[in-house]
Amino acid sequence: MIYADNAATTAMSDAAINTMTEVMKNIYGNPSSLYSVGQKAKEVLEQAREDVATAIGACAREITFTSGGSEADNQAIVSAAILGAKQGKKHIISTAFEHHAVLHTLRKLAKEGFEITLLDVHENGLVTAEEVNEAIRDDTCLVTIMYANNEIGTIQPIREIGAVCHERGVLFHTDAVQAIGHIKIDVERDNIDMLSASAHKFHGPKGVGFLFARKNIRLSNIIEGGAQERGKRAGTENVAAIAAMATALKEAVNNIDKNSSNLIPKRDRLIELISKIPHCELNGDAKSRLPGNVNFCFEGIEGESLLLLLDDKGVCASSGSACTSGSLDPSHVLLAIGRVHDVAHGSLRLTLSEDITDEEIDLIALAVTEVVDRLRSFSPVWRDLVNGKREFIIK
Amino acid sequence: MIYADNAATTAMSDAAINTMTEVMKNIYGNPSSLYSVGQKAKEVLEQAREDVATAIGACAREITFTSGGSEADNQAIVSAAILGAKQGKKHIISTAFEHHAVLHTLRKLAKEGFEITLLDVHENGLVTAEEVNEAIRDDTCLVTIMYANNEIGTIQPIREIGAVCHERGVLFHTDAVQAIGHIKIDVERDNIDMLSASAHKFHGPKGVGFLFARKNIRLSNIIEGGAQERGKRAGTENVAAIAAMATALKEAVNNIDKNSSNLIPKRDRLIELISKIPHCELNGDAKSRLPGNVNFCFEGIEGESLLLLLDDKGVCASSGSACTSGSLDPSHVLLAIGRVHDVAHGSLRLTLSEDITDEEIDLIALAVTEVVDRLRSFSPVWRDLVNGKREFIIK
Repeated sequence: MIYADNAATTAMSDAAINTMTEVMKNIYGNPSSLYSVGQKAKEVLEQAREDVATAIGACAREITFTSGGSEADNQAIVSAAILGAKQGKKHIISTAFEHHAVLHTLRKLAKEGFEITLLDVHENGLVTAEEVNEAIRDDTCLVTIMYANNEIGTIQPIREIGAVCHERGVLFHTDAVQAIGHIKIDVERDNIDMLSASAHKFHGPKGVGFLFARKNIRLSNIIEGGAQERGKRAGTENVAAIAAMATALKEAVNNIDKNSSNLIPKRDRLIELISKIPHCELNGDAKSRLPGNVNFCFEGIEGESLLLLLDDKGVCASSGSACTSGSLDPSHVLLAIGRVHDVAHGSLRLTLSEDITDEEIDLIALAVTEVVDRLRSFSPVWRDLVNGKREFIIK
Repeated sequence: MIYADNAATTAMSDAAINTMTEVMKNIYGNPSSLYSVGQKAKEVLEQAREDVATAIGACAREITFTSGGSEADNQAIVSAAILGAKQGKKHIISTAFEHHAVLHTLRKLAKEGFEITLLDVHENGLVTAEEVNEAIRDDTCLVTIMYANNEIGTIQPIREIGAVCHERGVLFHTDAVQAIGHIKIDVERDNIDMLSASAHKFHGPKGVGFLFARKNIRLSNIIEGGAQERGKRAGTENVAAIAAMATALKEAVNNIDKNSSNLIPKRDRLIELISKIPHCELNGDAKSRLPGNVNFCFEGIEGESLLLLLDDKGVCASSGSACTSGSLDPSHVLLAIGRVHDVAHGSLRLTLSEDITDEEIDLIALAVTEVVDRLRSFSPVWRDLVNGKREFIIK
């Protein structure tokens, strides 16, 4: 079995599992408790905060632990909106292909009277800092743009976008869930004010993530209650998972160069092999792209059948975000980069793990080629395309 | 070391650790993914949902997994408030000694125009169904009263309160974080519409909990984003922790009779031994009380010093809720049952685990007696009390 859906979730690393098990078994105290058992848990918690902060060039007190990336996105955006509203600024800029944790939070804010500008995304899956600059108004309180897209893996010019935001005095948040641990991030260099992350995307556990927010940004609670996380996130801290996240993040960040230089040639080879299939096209820029992301559209087939047949051949892949896989709608990301409905339906996302081998790359390419062939052999749409009754969109 | 702060958090059971480790290692898929690895995770998730539902007499689809008790409390109350507001009903009833996850959510709603009635709690730490009935108005949309108090362990007449709410057509939510797994709960029998729970209070992992809400109650999101949990709670499901929670809950519920009949005599013996210390008093009703909860006020001493000296003697205890232990304010729970500030400051909560032994009970009692003696020996307040310059409040 080849697991090629690492953008959906990753297997935990051995080191992360070990940290988790060690803390679960031996450090069970509540970090808020005064006695030694509690204080030991607090030490583990604060060490994890240091480690996570260091990994992104931040200070420990700028890190708030959350239950994951979605919660972090919600908290970042709602906090910025509340700060903005206090100054009479109720305009937010984002893009049309953000994760739903961002888009749905913005939709909620729109109902509360905020005005949302969703920037168009170019066909290559990128936006530019100039476009952000043009969209900023006097009443803009937040720009929120993902570091790397969860479906097509394109990496935005975050540093430039952040610079524009700072020049114009607007807060800049980035959903870095797909990027962190895979490409180098430094919140100072990248001019980031707020950043969301999720541990299970970099071989840490599920159910834990963090929000980076600069010291001077006053967060608002998504979860009200106890005084944990400086009063900004109630609930007993998930100590074991937080420690395991720190372990996984350190490991991932320490190995970024090694992993990228190993993965990028494999990714490019897979792209090359799949490109040989007729009437298919890579989604998203080929260069400004996560090291492990491959995403194609194939004409004349259905994404869901593609996945099921690939599963039969031992390849785990997806057609887009796992968060919406129950839905029959085509990916909003592919629509945002200009794919038409029919083509967007025939998409395939392969997201590779760092330990993928060349043999596995060949096996994936072969499986995809065979499955696409087979599906097209009984697709009425494909027949029409071949017979000239319909026009090919992808040449 | 004797860990007697199980209301703050519990050590995970071996079975829960095993489930967690097994799932972390072997079932890492994203439950939203279509392929087999994802579907295996989904099976684990849905089996856990069945098990959790069965443990409280609910249906699986009435269970929403959350990051813990605080999130569940927030979601229950906010959801009921939104439903109420749609019908023009903006009055909520609760008590003065709820957990902060409830009280702070209510405070937020008060700012948004809701009217909150906090019922007074009797000296014995109980409210009555009649008092709830008297407080219900035509515009009441929610009654939220905790099943058992987190500091003094008193168990409310939930079944009767629920019956009153249903008679009057008002939703009834209970924060059962301290009760579940320790006393029998059946949402049908107890007339409960919504219930919050947290795994780490019944030997499950931290960072996971659930909200029970009857089928007909439309929940609102606290966390917006993906379509997980029927669209009501975004974020990749914390599969390993959810499975471990189900394991821990099944274990706890299956052993409730055995654990209570073992624990109650030990609790009562500890109460008896500590009661021999002069000028101290049990907080909360002696009978309608969680099997493992002992909570005393001592005149003339400071809670914090008490805890630190007990820690030196190898006893982990608390003065109240761990969630607010950073605060210098006396417990709002003890103030709510009528303790004056000075006395509330000298409080001690001992919450016993099911495996506590008679010898440990004796050791705890001895340690408390010695530490109280020592603290009083250099307390100026105690000197004044003994010299008649101040009057004893506790006889």
